[in-house]
Amino acid sequence: MIQIPQLDEQSDVPIYRQLYQNIRYIIETKQLRSGERLPPTRQLAALLGLNRTTISAAYELLEAEGLIRGHVGRGSFVAPRPAESGLLNWDELLAPAFPAPPSPPAASAGISFTNSRPSEELFPLEEFRASCAEVVGDDSIAAVLQLGSPAGYAPLRRRLLEMARQEGTARQEDDILITSGCQQALDLIGRVLVRTGETVAMEDPVYPGLKNVFLAAGATAAGVEVAGDGLRPAALEAAVNRGRPKLLVVTPNFQNPTGTTLPVEAREEVIRITRHAGIPIVENDIYGGLRYEGQSLPTLKQLDGSGNTILLRSFSKIAFPGLRVGWILAPKPVIQRLAEAKQRADLHTGQLSQAVLLRFLESGRLEAHRQRMVAAGAERLRAALEGCERFLPAGTRFTRPEGGMNLWVRLREPLDASEVLAKALREGVSYLPGKYFAVGREEAGSLRLSFAGLRPEMIREGLRKLGRIFGEEAGRARRMRELETAPAMV
Amino acid sequence: MIQIPQLDEQSDVPIYRQLYQNIRYIIETKQLRSGERLPPTRQLAALLGLNRTTISAAYELLEAEGLIRGHVGRGSFVAPRPAESGLLNWDELLAPAFPAPPSPPAASAGISFTNSRPSEELFPLEEFRASCAEVVGDDSIAAVLQLGSPAGYAPLRRRLLEMARQEGTARQEDDILITSGCQQALDLIGRVLVRTGETVAMEDPVYPGLKNVFLAAGATAAGVEVAGDGLRPAALEAAVNRGRPKLLVVTPNFQNPTGTTLPVEAREEVIRITRHAGIPIVENDIYGGLRYEGQSLPTLKQLDGSGNTILLRSFSKIAFPGLRVGWILAPKPVIQRLAEAKQRADLHTGQLSQAVLLRFLESGRLEAHRQRMVAAGAERLRAALEGCERFLPAGTRFTRPEGGMNLWVRLREPLDASEVLAKALREGVSYLPGKYFAVGREEAGSLRLSFAGLRPEMIREGLRKLGRIFGEEAGRARRMRELETAPAMV
Repeated sequence: MIQIPQLDEQSDVPIYRQLYQNIRYIIETKQLRSGERLPPTRQLAALLGLNRTTISAAYELLEAEGLIRGHVGRGSFVAPRPAESGLLNWDELLAPAFPAPPSPPAASAGISFTNSRPSEELFPLEEFRASCAEVVGDDSIAAVLQLGSPAGYAPLRRRLLEMARQEGTARQEDDILITSGCQQALDLIGRVLVRTGETVAMEDPVYPGLKNVFLAAGATAAGVEVAGDGLRPAALEAAVNRGRPKLLVVTPNFQNPTGTTLPVEAREEVIRITRHAGIPIVENDIYGGLRYEGQSLPTLKQLDGSGNTILLRSFSKIAFPGLRVGWILAPKPVIQRLAEAKQRADLHTGQLSQAVLLRFLESGRLEAHRQRMVAAGAERLRAALEGCERFLPAGTRFTRPEGGMNLWVRLREPLDASEVLAKALREGVSYLPGKYFAVGREEAGSLRLSFAGLRPEMIREGLRKLGRIFGEEAGRARRMRELETAPAMV
Repeated sequence: MIQIPQLDEQSDVPIYRQLYQNIRYIIETKQLRSGERLPPTRQLAALLGLNRTTISAAYELLEAEGLIRGHVGRGSFVAPRPAESGLLNWDELLAPAFPAPPSPPAASAGISFTNSRPSEELFPLEEFRASCAEVVGDDSIAAVLQLGSPAGYAPLRRRLLEMARQEGTARQEDDILITSGCQQALDLIGRVLVRTGETVAMEDPVYPGLKNVFLAAGATAAGVEVAGDGLRPAALEAAVNRGRPKLLVVTPNFQNPTGTTLPVEAREEVIRITRHAGIPIVENDIYGGLRYEGQSLPTLKQLDGSGNTILLRSFSKIAFPGLRVGWILAPKPVIQRLAEAKQRADLHTGQLSQAVLLRFLESGRLEAHRQRMVAAGAERLRAALEGCERFLPAGTRFTRPEGGMNLWVRLREPLDASEVLAKALREGVSYLPGKYFAVGREEAGSLRLSFAGLRPEMIREGLRKLGRIFGEEAGRARRMRELETAPAMV
């Protein structure tokens, strides 16, 4: 660490200049090395009993000479001297690290409610093997292995477009782009539709991978509150009036993380609001095929006669997320621009994955598997809802999804889901606290339970443990509060 | 089309205001609809016999009222009125189309020298099928099909890192990130290392997919001239002195499009220059495994003891480009930041492709196939060089690659490779004119011949045709010039 400089208040040399000479000497004699951080001005001022502006003046001189570099909000660092050391200061060169919340705790060996993904146990391996063997054995395999088109493997694109036309989702003016999963679909949309400083409206809470794409594109996220039946249209209208967003991204079916589904009237309302404001909708429908109860609802893309909706779908939530294949259905000019961005991003999505999934689809194996996934999901959802009702302490609220992989729990105040997680992890259960999903409103008591990857008995056992832990922690919190509010004994 | 407005020069209302009222009426009565383009100011000025500034003043008024929107370089358009029509104007919403040169002509049915990629005929399909069957049959397949890590499939990453350590390319401080081909490697590097307004130094000419990544990231491309033996260090030094680039991207082996290779001394020089200036090197080594003649040279990454070099490699030029698997070898802090960007971009690269290529590698099939590719490539390179010597007209210059897939031809002046291409296409031969590869210096007479995808007899036949066409066109150009310079008959 830097030594406290000797400063002479009687000297003719102003104090800031003495300080500058001191630090310069320290840098030149390599007591402070390239990339090392200088003490914050506030801290050094306190240490030396000086005014903070004096410290800043010295730092400014050092910066003007190229000896240090300042970063707003991160402090000042000794500048690299590459000619001498030959070593780059990567911290200087790299774009600032993305301000993401700390990574969630790794899934422990116990019962993990942390992952919104299908269970490996349910993977139809024999059907996958058969599809793979058929693709690999066919003469068309050489074309699959050769460089392909940015828009995707043509036979898969054709098939998906045909299906979308048959179900009334695709209009004549629409086209399809194959992406490396839904994550890439969001990323490409960010590239072609969002510019730095624009606003993107999205559900609050929302899947962080969705939010981060747009933040990284330089946009501001405008959170739209999610109630028990999805995004609140009134909250959307307010967000639109506050500052016209460039886009609305919405997951109408079994939203991640809340599991909520937008009713038809709300869908119509969302379309009306966005159409009136001239805002395109990005409809993220990756969970749509996983409805376990109730009636299927039309997509926004189907309801929206104007063609303003961009629909995202994926194979990943039903089968084989490791293959990374999703797609975008949108008006042709949008697909055209997205395909250009896709070409710059990675030329195209791997064609073996695309060809195998096409075979899996065409052979009817995908639909048969989806039905098995729906049956398994229904059982797991039931176990989760029954477990919540039976084991969670009175006053705990939770959503009642009709499909998908997640449900959202709100603990009674003053419980903090992040704090309680530490105890849960020790007892072999994990979940994701709500803070990972917050856009603008943090709810300390909320958490996501991803139930689809767990067998029903594990779900019940996990909820039994969680119920006990939540109860104990609530009791402890109550006792703490009582202690705190007890009058002083005098 | 817009009607010519009736303007009254005697009126007290200034002409620009009359024009504004006229156009406003036309828009309000929907004679011109949302998204339609107004006549360019220059054209309308000529049409009405008015000064262009008068037209501009009228357009400015319309724009201030929100009735039209102007786009620099693209003209003015009637603004959308979403509340009425409900139809979005995608042209308004989408980011401006990327200023890329027009797409190269589609490869014709004849002899195509346009694609820098391996020939499908050389794909080792049986070895691929065996690798695929082994991966798919193994118990680990469920993990392959499940969601994976942003950094890549761990067994593949480990293996590649081990190999790089053994050959002395990877230092202890380095790590590997698997990407969806080298294109994505460049894109991710653009995301984490390049900010809008910065400069990226690259070879001139260069593969347009490389240049476009950085232009799309908002950077300026600084071209560094390529001579017969790769990038000229003196030109690099000049570029560095002109405006300190943020990065240098260089392809030292069999550069695309020129096929040139940087000698060891020049590699050392490049390292010295960039190290002195504190500039990281991105070394694109995707062709490195395809040396047909001469001695292998150490990579910049090996020569550069400082760890400042980021090395890009890929399976795509040796085997199965349709699988899209490449990798980045770089210091750990760089890989860490790249992995974060990768997660936002597409979570991770498809794991079936990664697992199959790992098996192809581990089984020794990749190396055996590489040797066959080298033997085939040597034969094709020989055919290309002999064909150039034998058939191209005297005075045509061409590079003499020792590997890779491309060579670079410079036609004698005044031939224009784009103009001659039209004739070549009619005769069933195609190539890419040099303009697709230009960074700062367009050479009208240059063109790229990608020879690796063609059988030797096709290469010879193609060059025989091209030689004849170039000769005929040169003769025609000479005659034209003689006509032009002939003294007037008086």
